[in-house]
Amino acid sequence: MTRGTWTPDTLIARYDEVRSHTERLAAPLSPEDQTVQSMPDVSPTKWHRAHVTWFFETFVLADHEPGFAPFQDQYWFLFNSYYEAVGPRYARAARGVISRPGAHDVGIYRGNVDARVRDLVSTLDHGALEKLTSTIELGFHHEQQHQELLLMDIKHVLSLNPLQPVYGGAPSAPTEPDRLGWVDVEGGLVEIGHRGAGFSFDNELPEHQVYLEPYRLADRLVTNGEWLAFMADGGYRRADLWLSDGWARVQSEGWRAPFYWVEADGVWLEHTLHGTWPVDPGLPVGHVSHYEADAYAAWAGKRLPTEAEWEHGVRAAGGDVTGNLADLETYHPRAAGPATGRLRQAYGDCWEWTSSAYLPYPGFHPADGAIGEYNGKFMSGQMVLRGGCALTPAGHTRPSYRNFFPPGSRWALSGVRLADGGAPTGGVAR
Amino acid sequence: MTRGTWTPDTLIARYDEVRSHTERLAAPLSPEDQTVQSMPDVSPTKWHRAHVTWFFETFVLADHEPGFAPFQDQYWFLFNSYYEAVGPRYARAARGVISRPGAHDVGIYRGNVDARVRDLVSTLDHGALEKLTSTIELGFHHEQQHQELLLMDIKHVLSLNPLQPVYGGAPSAPTEPDRLGWVDVEGGLVEIGHRGAGFSFDNELPEHQVYLEPYRLADRLVTNGEWLAFMADGGYRRADLWLSDGWARVQSEGWRAPFYWVEADGVWLEHTLHGTWPVDPGLPVGHVSHYEADAYAAWAGKRLPTEAEWEHGVRAAGGDVTGNLADLETYHPRAAGPATGRLRQAYGDCWEWTSSAYLPYPGFHPADGAIGEYNGKFMSGQMVLRGGCALTPAGHTRPSYRNFFPPGSRWALSGVRLADGGAPTGGVAR
Amino acid sequence: MTRGTWTPDTLIARYDEVRSHTERLAAPLSPEDQTVQSMPDVSPTKWHRAHVTWFFETFVLADHEPGFAPFQDQYWFLFNSYYEAVGPRYARAARGVISRPGAHDVGIYRGNVDARVRDLVSTLDHGALEKLTSTIELGFHHEQQHQELLLMDIKHVLSLNPLQPVYGGAPSAPTEPDRLGWVDVEGGLVEIGHRGAGFSFDNELPEHQVYLEPYRLADRLVTNGEWLAFMADGGYRRADLWLSDGWARVQSEGWRAPFYWVEADGVWLEHTLHGTWPVDPGLPVGHVSHYEADAYAAWAGKRLPTEAEWEHGVRAAGGDVTGNLADLETYHPRAAGPATGRLRQAYGDCWEWTSSAYLPYPGFHPADGAIGEYNGKFMSGQMVLRGGCALTPAGHTRPSYRNFFPPGSRWALSGVRLADGGAPTGGVAR
Amino acid sequence: MTRGTWTPDTLIARYDEVRSHTERLAAPLSPEDQTVQSMPDVSPTKWHRAHVTWFFETFVLADHEPGFAPFQDQYWFLFNSYYEAVGPRYARAARGVISRPGAHDVGIYRGNVDARVRDLVSTLDHGALEKLTSTIELGFHHEQQHQELLLMDIKHVLSLNPLQPVYGGAPSAPTEPDRLGWVDVEGGLVEIGHRGAGFSFDNELPEHQVYLEPYRLADRLVTNGEWLAFMADGGYRRADLWLSDGWARVQSEGWRAPFYWVEADGVWLEHTLHGTWPVDPGLPVGHVSHYEADAYAAWAGKRLPTEAEWEHGVRAAGGDVTGNLADLETYHPRAAGPATGRLRQAYGDCWEWTSSAYLPYPGFHPADGAIGEYNGKFMSGQMVLRGGCALTPAGHTRPSYRNFFPPGSRWALSGVRLADGGAPTGGVAR
Repeated sequence: MTRGTWTPDTLIARYDEVRSHTERLAAPLSPEDQTVQSMPDVSPTKWHRAHVTWFFETFVLADHEPGFAPFQDQYWFLFNSYYEAVGPRYARAARGVISRPGAHDVGIYRGNVDARVRDLVSTLDHGALEKLTSTIELGFHHEQQHQELLLMDIKHVLSLNPLQPVYGGAPSAPTEPDRLGWVDVEGGLVEIGHRGAGFSFDNELPEHQVYLEPYRLADRLVTNGEWLAFMADGGYRRADLWLSDGWARVQSEGWRAPFYWVEADGVWLEHTLHGTWPVDPGLPVGHVSHYEADAYAAWAGKRLPTEAEWEHGVRAAGGDVTGNLADLETYHPRAAGPATGRLRQAYGDCWEWTSSAYLPYPGFHPADGAIGEYNGKFMSGQMVLRGGCALTPAGHTRPSYRNFFPPGSRWALSGVRLADGGAPTGGVAR
Repeated sequence: MTRGTWTPDTLIARYDEVRSHTERLAAPLSPEDQTVQSMPDVSPTKWHRAHVTWFFETFVLADHEPGFAPFQDQYWFLFNSYYEAVGPRYARAARGVISRPGAHDVGIYRGNVDARVRDLVSTLDHGALEKLTSTIELGFHHEQQHQELLLMDIKHVLSLNPLQPVYGGAPSAPTEPDRLGWVDVEGGLVEIGHRGAGFSFDNELPEHQVYLEPYRLADRLVTNGEWLAFMADGGYRRADLWLSDGWARVQSEGWRAPFYWVEADGVWLEHTLHGTWPVDPGLPVGHVSHYEADAYAAWAGKRLPTEAEWEHGVRAAGGDVTGNLADLETYHPRAAGPATGRLRQAYGDCWEWTSSAYLPYPGFHPADGAIGEYNGKFMSGQMVLRGGCALTPAGHTRPSYRNFFPPGSRWALSGVRLADGGAPTGGVAR
Repeated sequence: MTRGTWTPDTLIARYDEVRSHTERLAAPLSPEDQTVQSMPDVSPTKWHRAHVTWFFETFVLADHEPGFAPFQDQYWFLFNSYYEAVGPRYARAARGVISRPGAHDVGIYRGNVDARVRDLVSTLDHGALEKLTSTIELGFHHEQQHQELLLMDIKHVLSLNPLQPVYGGAPSAPTEPDRLGWVDVEGGLVEIGHRGAGFSFDNELPEHQVYLEPYRLADRLVTNGEWLAFMADGGYRRADLWLSDGWARVQSEGWRAPFYWVEADGVWLEHTLHGTWPVDPGLPVGHVSHYEADAYAAWAGKRLPTEAEWEHGVRAAGGDVTGNLADLETYHPRAAGPATGRLRQAYGDCWEWTSSAYLPYPGFHPADGAIGEYNGKFMSGQMVLRGGCALTPAGHTRPSYRNFFPPGSRWALSGVRLADGGAPTGGVAR
Repeated sequence: MTRGTWTPDTLIARYDEVRSHTERLAAPLSPEDQTVQSMPDVSPTKWHRAHVTWFFETFVLADHEPGFAPFQDQYWFLFNSYYEAVGPRYARAARGVISRPGAHDVGIYRGNVDARVRDLVSTLDHGALEKLTSTIELGFHHEQQHQELLLMDIKHVLSLNPLQPVYGGAPSAPTEPDRLGWVDVEGGLVEIGHRGAGFSFDNELPEHQVYLEPYRLADRLVTNGEWLAFMADGGYRRADLWLSDGWARVQSEGWRAPFYWVEADGVWLEHTLHGTWPVDPGLPVGHVSHYEADAYAAWAGKRLPTEAEWEHGVRAAGGDVTGNLADLETYHPRAAGPATGRLRQAYGDCWEWTSSAYLPYPGFHPADGAIGEYNGKFMSGQMVLRGGCALTPAGHTRPSYRNFFPPGSRWALSGVRLADGGAPTGGVAR
């Protein structure tokens, strides 16, 4: 999955950079904050910190460190997320009942593994290191995924607390919704998937051909203001706009607004990592499910793009790739800014739901061994999201990146970009 | 959705043919048999008989019959399956608690609507009839779908009864599994979707281009004998073969064999519509979920075909279309017979799971009005099956037909055809 | 449990009487009606008819009939209700998925067992018969219990049907609520439990002493009119009136009126066995849970009687025992009629919730063998009801009879008689 | 509920004593330990610490402190356990998702309320104080109940952790089971309930007469060794020994030993607050449900005592009241010690299940206002336990004390004392 060029020094430097970023993200959180699992999808902060460490211990140290022994036998069991091949594992939904190791103990575990990884990298001969590098690099990207999850998860934990705790960041100045523009894209037989020497996950491979009719993509994400119009027009009450499964969820879970919106005295507020604030109509809507995204598109007389349309469109029409929000530590999408004729907000604001189910590319082959469980076994019952979001760490996005969640999932920072022409048009008459 | 040519006489003749076939299928069933709903997916026989009647009453008579009034106000509510636009409807999972109207009363309802439809067709002027024909034709195909469901559903009802009741048919002579052959198919930019003047559902449209790498398809379905080998090799105990969602179901529901198989004194028996019999190794395996089909393919080092590969393959390599089993009233798949160099068992034995999620074709547009709810709103969380099965009524299959079920579904008569090359290869290392 | 005197002739005559009454009750019901199980607590009519037959086959014929063989092996399994000692049994909640044996087949089963029981009774010698008589007599009372349940259960089945089917009976003329009077009862050390030579269940034994403070009992049941006043005063919205478990049910199940009441255009209607009719304020309220009965008593500043108070009160103050409603085939409680200074409506209208948990009497000892499972093992989590109801067959009531249901149960025909003084007074301040 | 004599000084001294004991119990626990809710019945340690503080703030300060304002508005909502009259409250089952206030913040809250209560008591005039004293005293006993719960709850939390954390205490030297003796008790018309000037809860009142047949009580609790014999004899596999509800739980939850027992390599170990140790056959069995206690008694051919028998027996035959284990900080039952002719282990080892449902005493009247919700509304669906346990704080036990839990509850430290004669004898034939 990797074709990068690393020396022991650059590998250790990058290792330290990635690892310390995790600790920086956890720093504002108390031991109690780090312990809570607010729903089965969410993991405690200290679990994230320990699990990414377990990944290096299991896949890097275990097979290569001379005289390897686990730091703590039970951690092997506690911090395995889903790798069946590695042995039995602790039940996901019960991560919140494990008070020990505490946040401080996890820090000690991290320090121990860090020292051992540095040692190993420094002492391996060239050939051995070359073989190990791709796993270490996978560990970097794995930890970055958990950095994003750590923020999504703690957002949920804090949102449930009536004391309205603040994690960090600050609200931006109120904005006005910008006019939506469209970018036309020629279709044809196009190349999709990861290309070149850089890192990718196995699910982005192999590069392959897909035939596309001509289409167009909205040049920015759907805004809160537009979403309020959808709500005002009965968007959550009109069965005709919804997929059947989506409509069932609207009713069983009482959806009437995006996940973190709450109504107080007739005003819509939004839980954010910087507290609970009035909804800003100029910012992109976030924390909507695929079902909601699809219903909105039907209401707007448009559709969601396929993942191939998204990827080809970003490559062809130019994505706005500068400035990951994660660097800004705002932890929230920003306004689109003035139109540029290119695709705005393609990476740093909200993950973008596509109309594509998460399935293997033609010729896909998972990696050998336990690492092969990384992606392939989840190719069922999920939809692809593309781009990135304001919680994604810098350097973790690329045009071929395939994120995925079940269509009813709302706690991820997921938003909507519309498409039109060419591929499926649901129209109002769902 | 239709482009057929009908006269009032041929329309009425076909109407009578379709309608009487439903009654013929229900004839062996007692009033009690027709009342039971054995799980939420299953509907009582008398509900099927009434619902297909309601379809004609609602979509044909209501808007066109002079002085229309419903046969019974409450039937309007009781026999609406899922059409939100038609008004509130009775809860699906509680169809089995409605003892009245009884089986005999449903017959009276059917007779009443039949007479009124015949009257209407006989008296409409040419222009009006032309507009109505496509809805009536849709009603035929709708009723045929329920004929198949009626048999799948009563199979489940009777299978739960310790008295082991027989619906009909008889076991075939025991057979030996035939050697599996492969049919090579050239890929390229191919046409997929319904073409020509005949009837199709809206989800088979529009015809469109898809790019395929070269591939090959197994020339027959996976057999019970092969499935027993999969089981003997730990197929239901090896997590590495399974999609994550599938493995969770294996464990939560204790799957260890196809849906209707039961072990007695070390011998595997199978509930069928002709009673409970030892599993015949030469017959196609049926009543397996998509998860099981996918795990089997991984075990075999092969994969499932995409729906485009299936459709193009059947067209290019020649499907074995003769002899729908429904005509034979065996109600069970048959053995493959000798190899022919073409694709055997393509229509009349088991619906074939593909690796494609059920999604709209590029440019898909559902019909206007309530009829638009027929297909489009279900395009979420389901997988496509192709072909047909031994319970499918004669004349109801075609290359472009898209059946669909959730990936964990097992009560449909669904089986497995392997593919290889070109598109995704899961291999053993899931 | 019995001390009656029977000859073969009187035993057979009574047998025929009891058995034919069951068939009379089932006669108005179609095969479909007899098949439905509308919730786990409810059993299909044909199951009741078969189960009481199984009881005679299992406990009378199996051990005494020369060359005994079951009528049908699987019936042994299908129609065992809860006797662990008799072997495995079919799952209670799935009785509604068994379409066969059908209603007609059950009739054949009944006829077969009836003939064999008559034969056995006619041919046994005196000593053997004497030993068997108490089991046969238990079978009579067991079947009577199921006669009552059959009516309660079919009431529920038909109530769910939007066609509002009628079982039988007819509404009585509207009545006005009668003024509530009180009957004073002296306390002291009193005798409780079954006495004398007649039949009783084991749970009514042994007769024993209980100390009671002086108390008084309402001379009639709480009426629908009084219940409407309770509702109008926020009875279902005031947590302070309710037991904690009861309040949880009010909220989780949305209780706002008795079980069979439905509001239509501001008027309260009630599902009855003679159809859906406006609530009659003069009739006793029925189908309320223990929680509701207790909350009503708290609202009224009174309390429910203990079972000892009820039994002693009925004996001391004179129960109104004439005229079981079952004889009248009204299938519904009647109005109290003019005050008499005695306890009105003590047997034939609604089972009366007491404040006593269903527990063994001091010195209680269940019968030996499987019959010992009849009562004792249910002495947990249930409350005692006393008296009888309009669905109880004639001759099935007595002062010491202990009926029991979980406190949240509402589908039984259960009502409320208030008590005051002596024992616990909840008052408004629950 | 109190008739004690207090001065401001003795009241403050006792207040400080009770309050500081809570903090002493929490001291060994990390912030993470104090945050976890391992199941809905369990509350986080920091919640217990805050809730008992809320009790004083709500029922003592709110109505009497001049210029009262809550320490923190949201605490009012977060730390209300179940008092409907005080306003809305936070969902019990979600106490574990609230990370803030943290353990340290709760300490600040406690200090603030402590200072204010001391101030109030010091400054109130004599008459006002007299009225308030009974509420303050109730607060002491309320906090003591939570001290016991805090230990029961953290025992559960730590037991789930594969790291096997230790709270405190140490295992005692292994012991041999002592021979079981019996203490005969005369029956008759006896007085039950709280008497005299000391504190009691409202549910222990009023004192009243109950008639008892002569009976006898085991002179010690059932031991682990005896329980192992019950298990070896198929105790958890014989339906005939169990109440129907109990047998259903055995099967649905897979019970095969007491709650905290785990089998490892054929040896039974027990989770305790001092770690996981082999089961000591001489110690009393603990953490068994009422269902298990009842099944054990049936197996032993004995029965459980009624609560009246227990209370009268302890008074008549002399309970062994010296030495609450809580003082010893062993946190675990001890061996019975040599027979004395009196009832051993009556208070300090395991709460003792009785055969009595938790119901109001004759003439019971809950207190006015929100405090009236303390006991009365829970008188449904629970069984009475008597005595006390090794986690009960010193000074919190008395003969009339009525503890209560649902019959399936196992996480409380509950054990078994057998009775015989007089009252109900289940015998083997349940």
